[in-house]
Amino acid sequence: MSNGFLEAVKKRRSYYGISKQSPLSDDQIVSLIQDAVKYTPASFNSQSARALVLLGQQHDQLWDLTKETLRKIVPAEHFGATEGKMDAFKSGYGTVLFFEDNAVIEGLQKQFADYAENFPKWSLQSSGMVQYVVWTLLESEGFGASLQHYNPLIDDQVKSKWGVPASWQLIAQLPFGKPTSEPGDKEFQPIEERVKVHK
Amino acid sequence: MSNGFLEAVKKRRSYYGISKQSPLSDDQIVSLIQDAVKYTPASFNSQSARALVLLGQQHDQLWDLTKETLRKIVPAEHFGATEGKMDAFKSGYGTVLFFEDNAVIEGLQKQFADYAENFPKWSLQSSGMVQYVVWTLLESEGFGASLQHYNPLIDDQVKSKWGVPASWQLIAQLPFGKPTSEPGDKEFQPIEERVKVHK
Repeated sequence: MSNGFLEAVKKRRSYYGISKQSPLSDDQIVSLIQDAVKYTPASFNSQSARALVLLGQQHDQLWDLTKETLRKIVPAEHFGATEGKMDAFKSGYGTVLFFEDNAVIEGLQKQFADYAENFPKWSLQSSGMVQYVVWTLLESEGFGASLQHYNPLIDDQVKSKWGVPASWQLIAQLPFGKPTSEPGDKEFQPIEERVKVHK
Repeated sequence: MSNGFLEAVKKRRSYYGISKQSPLSDDQIVSLIQDAVKYTPASFNSQSARALVLLGQQHDQLWDLTKETLRKIVPAEHFGATEGKMDAFKSGYGTVLFFEDNAVIEGLQKQFADYAENFPKWSLQSSGMVQYVVWTLLESEGFGASLQHYNPLIDDQVKSKWGVPASWQLIAQLPFGKPTSEPGDKEFQPIEERVKVHK
């Protein structure tokens, strides 16, 4: 079975060594991310996923801002490693920030009260789908990327700096760039313990 | 840009009309689901995703069981529609049930106490990724599928009938089969309101 989707699924990895080169134009990058957000499903077709794409200096400023936030809380003797990580993300070409719009979720909770406690859970599952599609799509076009979680530490600064609506909840960040190094081997648990079959 | 991954992303839809025909052998179906579970990422490489694949009579029994559970709680005058939905799912070839292993999540919460409240959220995001990959992979091979949420109503019966470990938490169900009808048009919100760009 030759399957371009499966090939991309198998190839996707976390790339931590990334540079400011890009195999695509900025318009092509934005178009891919728009397609990912548009075509990825959400329960009740809620379309609650939101994304903020930062390129060039805006991307640099995100990781400077994150570094300075962490400087205030990470003990000085460990900060060297933290600073190295932030500079590695900053070495990339851009970052996609993933949000879910709480206004949409709260609207559904009012409209369908029987499912009220499920909507926040479905929102996170749907956000995971969008994160995955953007990640794998960028890598299928020659980028390397990794998924980071500096929320909620940076939420307020991100919102005020880039004018993000108050109802958008930050879920994850995906710095990306042209790979400068390949990821190492990954360890897998025996798949028979994870997938059971009855027929 | 020709991209097999993006093509599959754009083609994936919810198929409600499905039959018991299969474009693949059972071994090929299981192999695809194993690859999806194996290669889809999870934070801290937790590999907390689990799947139960039901084919043939086992699949039929799941939807009979779900129907009988719903019969006890859905008002009789609305049950006709419910029964029709259950029979439509049962008309398919198989169902993938998605779980997250709470034992893994609780282990991480103890090991990394600073992130304790994040692990359940990351687990749901990771589960969403696995659900999406299985869904899109099956459709890329000629199946139609849709994502359903009859948890927690059916959890106890599923666990006892198929010997599912107590720590596995049911998250979603994906009935699939050969499409017998095409989905209608889908409405999209303006993408510019959902994806913001700063460069």
